[in-house]
Amino acid sequence: MQTVAIFGVGLMGGSFALALREAGYAGRIVGVSSPATIARAVERGVIDEGLPPAEAASRADLVFLAQPIGVIIETIGAIGSIVASVPRRPLVTDAGSTKSAIMAAAAGQMAGTLFVGGHPMAGKEARGVEAASASLFRGRVWGLTPARPEDLQQPQCREFVQWLERIGAVPLVLDAAEHDRIVALTSHLPQLASTALAATLAGRTSGTPAVHGPGLEDMTRLALSSFDIWADILASNRDNIAAALETYIAALESVHNAVVTSTNSDIRQLFERGSAFARPLRDASNRQPA
Amino acid sequence: MQTVAIFGVGLMGGSFALALREAGYAGRIVGVSSPATIARAVERGVIDEGLPPAEAASRADLVFLAQPIGVIIETIGAIGSIVASVPRRPLVTDAGSTKSAIMAAAAGQMAGTLFVGGHPMAGKEARGVEAASASLFRGRVWGLTPARPEDLQQPQCREFVQWLERIGAVPLVLDAAEHDRIVALTSHLPQLASTALAATLAGRTSGTPAVHGPGLEDMTRLALSSFDIWADILASNRDNIAAALETYIAALESVHNAVVTSTNSDIRQLFERGSAFARPLRDASNRQPA
Repeated sequence: MQTVAIFGVGLMGGSFALALREAGYAGRIVGVSSPATIARAVERGVIDEGLPPAEAASRADLVFLAQPIGVIIETIGAIGSIVASVPRRPLVTDAGSTKSAIMAAAAGQMAGTLFVGGHPMAGKEARGVEAASASLFRGRVWGLTPARPEDLQQPQCREFVQWLERIGAVPLVLDAAEHDRIVALTSHLPQLASTALAATLAGRTSGTPAVHGPGLEDMTRLALSSFDIWADILASNRDNIAAALETYIAALESVHNAVVTSTNSDIRQLFERGSAFARPLRDASNRQPA
Repeated sequence: MQTVAIFGVGLMGGSFALALREAGYAGRIVGVSSPATIARAVERGVIDEGLPPAEAASRADLVFLAQPIGVIIETIGAIGSIVASVPRRPLVTDAGSTKSAIMAAAAGQMAGTLFVGGHPMAGKEARGVEAASASLFRGRVWGLTPARPEDLQQPQCREFVQWLERIGAVPLVLDAAEHDRIVALTSHLPQLASTALAATLAGRTSGTPAVHGPGLEDMTRLALSSFDIWADILASNRDNIAAALETYIAALESVHNAVVTSTNSDIRQLFERGSAFARPLRDASNRQPA
């Protein structure tokens, strides 16, 4: 892996570059982004240089698409034939938050190319290359959705997975459709629950913003997310997200019913189920090095 | 304020005792709790001694009821006539998370006594006197709901409020009914939203608990709360909580509708409203010393 091309040098792409460097990667890292982003990324030492898409795609051994989902799909179309004609068969992977639409685009427009979908389950509120950090992926699952399981046995993939481990990520192989079903529950639903909660409170608590416990800050942190990223996520995982919302609304309706009828046993059960789910999640997170 | 009696030497009561000491309070602190709790609290230096309720109530200048809401209401009934007969007119206050039911109990069973409702908007996951901390209330609002505004001008109240400021809390005077309406939105709804979210995910993501972003940990932290505390809160603020749940469910239904129909403008608006609510909340919290 002598050259890595990062498409979209933002929080994810920039963090991957910094993490590779910190883990000892000595090859070339080129970036494809707006001129302003490239300038800042080069100045910060995140990438070595910026290149046009075609040139970056044809030179790289690893092409990492770290753009919004819609742009990843466009890039797959734009560089598909270029990458397919590179004799040394580069690995193309991505960091999109949903996988089925991207895998379908790759199957259609990058036939013959080694494409393995990826989803680093990491993030923070701040965006852009300025927020990039070498430790972003440490202790975090990095989902991998190969089109065929045997793709992961290719030498390029094995090397990529080794780098993921070196940067502290936890590679986890998943079926793309199963990935999208799960993240609708564990990522997209929490986002919408937080946004809807904050929007519900907006206007209804004016004049008394200070009257809240520390829990409200936790519950509205995700609400700070920008819709710019989420438009593509919602569009590319619509059915799973709708189903997750329906299940959540049904749970809240049963809470409402139990509150109104004072059926404590139902709510106690819900608290116990919720607590049993939340506890190991937190313990696992506490064990993480980052 | 020569003697403070703390009923319920748990996280709240114990933290108040430790905070008073750290702020320079040199008087006596007596506790009313189970023998086991009293032993641990004395050993940790949280209180000077344990006393039976009647003795603690008759000796104190400040009676602080830091029990679950139902027990606070029982205690008001049990010590009401004792406190009323103490010539130096002690101040009785509490730490209950809802205020209307407690204010009604005090009006009925503690007539003639100076009772000011209180609600320290602080907490953490851990419970019990072992988790008590002198810094728990630092930077946190301490709601005060007097039966009559002029009650706060009594010398006992002024001294209590001074101590609240010395321990770093931010006293905020509120009407009890308005308090309960607001905390239904800013505290009780977030709790139920977190519990329902965790319960929704339980069983639906088994085998892949690691496939989630850092946001899920935020969103399920409150779900760790024990129902033992929440049974009384729900029971004493039923109508406000039911109304808050209805508003939240309606917001989620509009999200669901917008997702299904791809009405991005509606969701963008929701994200913007949510973000505008969440931002100052977080900025304010960042400014807090603790």
